[in-house]
Amino acid sequence: MKKITMGAVLFSMMFGGLHAQSLQSPDGKFEMNFQLKEGIPYYNLKYNGAVVVEDSKLGLRLFKDNSIQFASEITKSEDTKFDLNNGFTKTDEKRNSKDETWQPVLGEKKNYINHYNELALTLHQASSERNIVVKFRLFNDGLGFRYEFPQQKNLNYFVIREEDTEFDFPTDMKAWWMVADYDSQEYRYQETKISEIPGRWDKAFDANASQALVKNAVQSPLMLKKEGKNPLYVNVAEAAVLDYPASHLEVDAQDFKFKTHLTPDRQGAKGYIQTPSVTPWRTIIVSPKAEEVMDSKMIFNLNEPTKYTDTSYIHPTKYMGVWWEMIIGKSQWAYSTAENVHLDTTDFSKLTPNGKHAANNTKVKEYIDFAAENGFQGLLIEGWNIGWEDWFGHSKEYVFDFITPYPDFDIKMLNEYAHSKGIKLIMHHETSGSATNYERWSDKAFQLMNKYGYDAVKTGYVGDIIPRGEHHYSQWTINHFYRIAEKANEYKIMVNSHESVRPTGESRTYPNYVSAEAARGTEYEAFAGNNPDHQTILPFTRWMGGSMDYTPGIFQTKLDYYFPGDKRFVKTTLAKQLALYVTMYMPLQMAADLPENYKKHMDAFQFIKDVAADWDDTKILSAEPGDYVITARKAKGTEDWFVGGITDENKRDYTVDFSFLNKGEKYEATIYEDGKDADYINNPQSYNIYKKQITSKSKINFKMVRSGGFAVSVKPVK
Amino acid sequence: MKKITMGAVLFSMMFGGLHAQSLQSPDGKFEMNFQLKEGIPYYNLKYNGAVVVEDSKLGLRLFKDNSIQFASEITKSEDTKFDLNNGFTKTDEKRNSKDETWQPVLGEKKNYINHYNELALTLHQASSERNIVVKFRLFNDGLGFRYEFPQQKNLNYFVIREEDTEFDFPTDMKAWWMVADYDSQEYRYQETKISEIPGRWDKAFDANASQALVKNAVQSPLMLKKEGKNPLYVNVAEAAVLDYPASHLEVDAQDFKFKTHLTPDRQGAKGYIQTPSVTPWRTIIVSPKAEEVMDSKMIFNLNEPTKYTDTSYIHPTKYMGVWWEMIIGKSQWAYSTAENVHLDTTDFSKLTPNGKHAANNTKVKEYIDFAAENGFQGLLIEGWNIGWEDWFGHSKEYVFDFITPYPDFDIKMLNEYAHSKGIKLIMHHETSGSATNYERWSDKAFQLMNKYGYDAVKTGYVGDIIPRGEHHYSQWTINHFYRIAEKANEYKIMVNSHESVRPTGESRTYPNYVSAEAARGTEYEAFAGNNPDHQTILPFTRWMGGSMDYTPGIFQTKLDYYFPGDKRFVKTTLAKQLALYVTMYMPLQMAADLPENYKKHMDAFQFIKDVAADWDDTKILSAEPGDYVITARKAKGTEDWFVGGITDENKRDYTVDFSFLNKGEKYEATIYEDGKDADYINNPQSYNIYKKQITSKSKINFKMVRSGGFAVSVKPVK
Repeated sequence: MKKITMGAVLFSMMFGGLHAQSLQSPDGKFEMNFQLKEGIPYYNLKYNGAVVVEDSKLGLRLFKDNSIQFASEITKSEDTKFDLNNGFTKTDEKRNSKDETWQPVLGEKKNYINHYNELALTLHQASSERNIVVKFRLFNDGLGFRYEFPQQKNLNYFVIREEDTEFDFPTDMKAWWMVADYDSQEYRYQETKISEIPGRWDKAFDANASQALVKNAVQSPLMLKKEGKNPLYVNVAEAAVLDYPASHLEVDAQDFKFKTHLTPDRQGAKGYIQTPSVTPWRTIIVSPKAEEVMDSKMIFNLNEPTKYTDTSYIHPTKYMGVWWEMIIGKSQWAYSTAENVHLDTTDFSKLTPNGKHAANNTKVKEYIDFAAENGFQGLLIEGWNIGWEDWFGHSKEYVFDFITPYPDFDIKMLNEYAHSKGIKLIMHHETSGSATNYERWSDKAFQLMNKYGYDAVKTGYVGDIIPRGEHHYSQWTINHFYRIAEKANEYKIMVNSHESVRPTGESRTYPNYVSAEAARGTEYEAFAGNNPDHQTILPFTRWMGGSMDYTPGIFQTKLDYYFPGDKRFVKTTLAKQLALYVTMYMPLQMAADLPENYKKHMDAFQFIKDVAADWDDTKILSAEPGDYVITARKAKGTEDWFVGGITDENKRDYTVDFSFLNKGEKYEATIYEDGKDADYINNPQSYNIYKKQITSKSKINFKMVRSGGFAVSVKPVK
Repeated sequence: MKKITMGAVLFSMMFGGLHAQSLQSPDGKFEMNFQLKEGIPYYNLKYNGAVVVEDSKLGLRLFKDNSIQFASEITKSEDTKFDLNNGFTKTDEKRNSKDETWQPVLGEKKNYINHYNELALTLHQASSERNIVVKFRLFNDGLGFRYEFPQQKNLNYFVIREEDTEFDFPTDMKAWWMVADYDSQEYRYQETKISEIPGRWDKAFDANASQALVKNAVQSPLMLKKEGKNPLYVNVAEAAVLDYPASHLEVDAQDFKFKTHLTPDRQGAKGYIQTPSVTPWRTIIVSPKAEEVMDSKMIFNLNEPTKYTDTSYIHPTKYMGVWWEMIIGKSQWAYSTAENVHLDTTDFSKLTPNGKHAANNTKVKEYIDFAAENGFQGLLIEGWNIGWEDWFGHSKEYVFDFITPYPDFDIKMLNEYAHSKGIKLIMHHETSGSATNYERWSDKAFQLMNKYGYDAVKTGYVGDIIPRGEHHYSQWTINHFYRIAEKANEYKIMVNSHESVRPTGESRTYPNYVSAEAARGTEYEAFAGNNPDHQTILPFTRWMGGSMDYTPGIFQTKLDYYFPGDKRFVKTTLAKQLALYVTMYMPLQMAADLPENYKKHMDAFQFIKDVAADWDDTKILSAEPGDYVITARKAKGTEDWFVGGITDENKRDYTVDFSFLNKGEKYEATIYEDGKDADYINNPQSYNIYKKQITSKSKINFKMVRSGGFAVSVKPVK
């Protein structure tokens, strides 16, 4: 299986040598080489002198250039003369560098360091008299590069047929991957060699509400590991996916090579471009340490600083929700027994209540009381608005109006009640994928939020997108997501977006776009289930570009508690649920379980009450994708630290070295760990809690059971 | 070629006789028979005992029923078990009748008579346990019928694969037709036998900005004539096309049969239906007199009365426009020489003016002056807003904002100036087909109109629709058009919509949706040209469902006046241009030529100044599709009459019998006729004008030259 690379090397020396450009990272460890071989652009990447990425092609194929009106012919033209992947000569070269520190509005650290050397190469295609720029930024943690399209006579508008950026690896690395899909990221992660991806692909997915799989392609970010004596971790992803479709990675299993595959619209077009324009950044993060990959802020650095003039309304929030009881099937979003409702004509007050509607005045007040008593800031309520009777699966465009409550939800009273107790209700805007309808209603919906004092919204895009034929990750829909972010900013509203495209660092530019789901969250434990190693892979993949609303905190993990005989269960111990509050960064952080379940474990619940949601510092103490993650974080504006550790399906010991604490200071640590007899299948609710005085010299050993974990809160002793 | 119908007749007698239902028109001349033949529904239509439509199938094919979530699989399911075209039994029959008179807000007559007998048949499909209703309304001028889908357990949601309503004619009639297209109606009419349609089809179209032709199908309304001793005129069309795609007619040239073909979306779906729901009406208007077909108001009668609570803002308007000079290429919509602009970032005041921008303060004031001096109420100005530099052909979504004027268009000053002279400016919202963008901006755009006192807007949809993949006539886009009408009504604004779907009587329901283009208008005289018989066919086709903004009134018909050597010319005499103001009903009526051209013919221009735009009565004096139209109309609220006559490429005499005037009263007629030496090619501006006293006993003979015409204004002598 090992491919022969000698030919390429020789070829490179013979034809490319004279035209090669090199770029070094600030610390000198990385080297990127660019060259044109017979007019075709290639790059490679070396780390400490060793090839990480072999000569890999760059370029795009276009449907047509701006000299022709494509109209309805767009899918027909396969003429290659418009392509931007060959016939180039280098006509200009600009170098630049930056070393800046910036502060995210919400983040894992107070300061993010943006330090890189830049090389921008202008390539001229003589046959078409067009120029493009390939811009490389080499950081101390890896490479970012993108295509830029200056506005010019022969390049005003074009339509992308495909971007063919390649990532050609010299060896058959281990890969943590998920099947590619234009509409869903809610799949289980797979762990195989690159060469084994096609063999596993067909078995690597289950059904989703909206699904358009891409055969033998995998999702980005893709986590890779060169195993052996000198292991190397490689993360392939993208940054700043704006006005452009999200990309997937086609696998060439024989050559250990990946190639971009953009999400098309229904016409097969992969991006309608007006110059001047830039593509997203293609990113390759590399380190011998998995922890450094997880800790990389490169993807955020490659996004533009925000232009928002006021970010004071953006704040970390811990919240509960009238939610999990619907997910597991105990309650319903819908109010009535009707199967078919028309928002304009149905009188919901005259429908027969189904008796299981959770978002009712009585229940919501109980949730408010509990959330307030326990120091939460927010309460999400789903199913508050009319339309849930037939919200899904009918390609119904006018499915919600986002402003009309069900008869048993007194929006004014409940907000006043919540505010009187220090709780803000969190709005829910499920769109059912009907983005056109949401755009029609968004002003009125945000005005309603302003009127009643909501400052955060959870949006949802379950099911196929309307405009019909668009995908969740196609250019139009991605523009929709950030259009909503900008509109929410006009109303000073934070957004937590579900079933939307995975973030690729956009929270730097749109800091009110606080979080997204965009992967398989806790809810899947009530559907087909998550694997015990799931949460150890997410930080290396989904999280690389932004926080995820994973919704941890399930104490009653066995669903036969609600439904005798039900085999569904959350595949972690209770202690691991606590640890997720630290290992998973989420500034809009949920305690997802029902109050009745927390009431039975108030001692353990104390950790959720205490833990912060925004941070001044983060230390990835130890991590291996698919195996374990141990993370310490320092709460924003305090000297409090929180440590979390999780393991996969294997039990595991880990000794936390507290040397990150201030020297000479005394701290009280509260430890939450798996009970000795704990087991995520048979005895998930067994845990120990104890307190201990510690200093920066302390070490504590934790024994995690299979799919177990531990959590520690550390406060200075005053 | 004559098909054998005996078999069908025998079959009908043997199997269908017992299950047949009959319906008569109020005057007894029409008879419709419905029957189920082996579970398949058929209808036929007789006029005075003769078969007009032979037994023709009814039914729809569906993708899936509501028991399955179709999600992204929609184009894949060809399973016929969801179809609604077979296996029926009749389970209920309801009869009804109506004889009412209603008043259109704007119309050709003061009163429209809605007189019909109705038969509603409930058909049960046992295999699927579903019911549908087929509802027939038989008027004295023809048949309308539709499908109705009651809300029921097994029929809550479905997706239409095709509607297969048939129109099976016994003989090979003459047809006036146009190629079917999902995006354009801007084609030349063809005149052939039904059997000759496929042979002509490939030669019957030219290029259009947005084009999706349907091979061997023709557009609706389709005008037919059974020639011979007892001629019969038949018009096949549709009414109330709402929340449903527009239909075309597939030709079976051997059997002289047509079948509906709905406009799909990009997924091949032809309608997303939630019950209770109804389809548009399929209409067959029949008369031995062409004039009666043209005069039919059946299509309007089949639309619902308006629910608008205030229609007082809807008024007839004669207007001029800063428009024709751009159409012919003398001026430009765009302000600058830029080829590529970004609405958010381009500073238009810093661009280089192209020197040909028509919508500038100086020119607009001149137009205002001329329009005011000559008694017009409105002035359309196109190219007033930023974005025209690259408005077309780039699939650009954010192409206009509809609120930002070019630097040389002082919107406040110009509106104040216009109002001071009794003129209202007419707004122009060209969308470039980007309907999603227009929906985003429509509130702000209408608010701007309210602020400055505009009360009418011309909308435009040149080019492919965005959402990409939708067509101009697909369900989504049709919903968009009427959504805009409803929103305009909120702001008390009249709409004149171009490149939108042809109206099918919706002005009854949306009376502010005053008019549309939806066919080849005068502008085509400056493109590929219109045939001399074009305006004699339009009233039998495009006009059947609503008025058209044809924009007549071109006096300077030869474009070599502007551009020496230019071969383009308007293919009518000047007198025919005047006649169009009577033969073509348009309550928002334009005088399309430049003031400088009217100034040279102020005597002829007097007719345009005098003619009304809304009417108390209309008499189609004589008409033959493709040959000639002679129409008399009585101006709203007055005793003034206007008469117009036009002919095709043949010269023609016609004697107007003024017996429609009040008996015993004296009138002064002002006659505008072709000069003796007039010729639409060689001498179009030759005309005679004279006055004559007339009474109801008067007759005047007019000699129309080829593509000529005459116009008469008739006022009582006081």
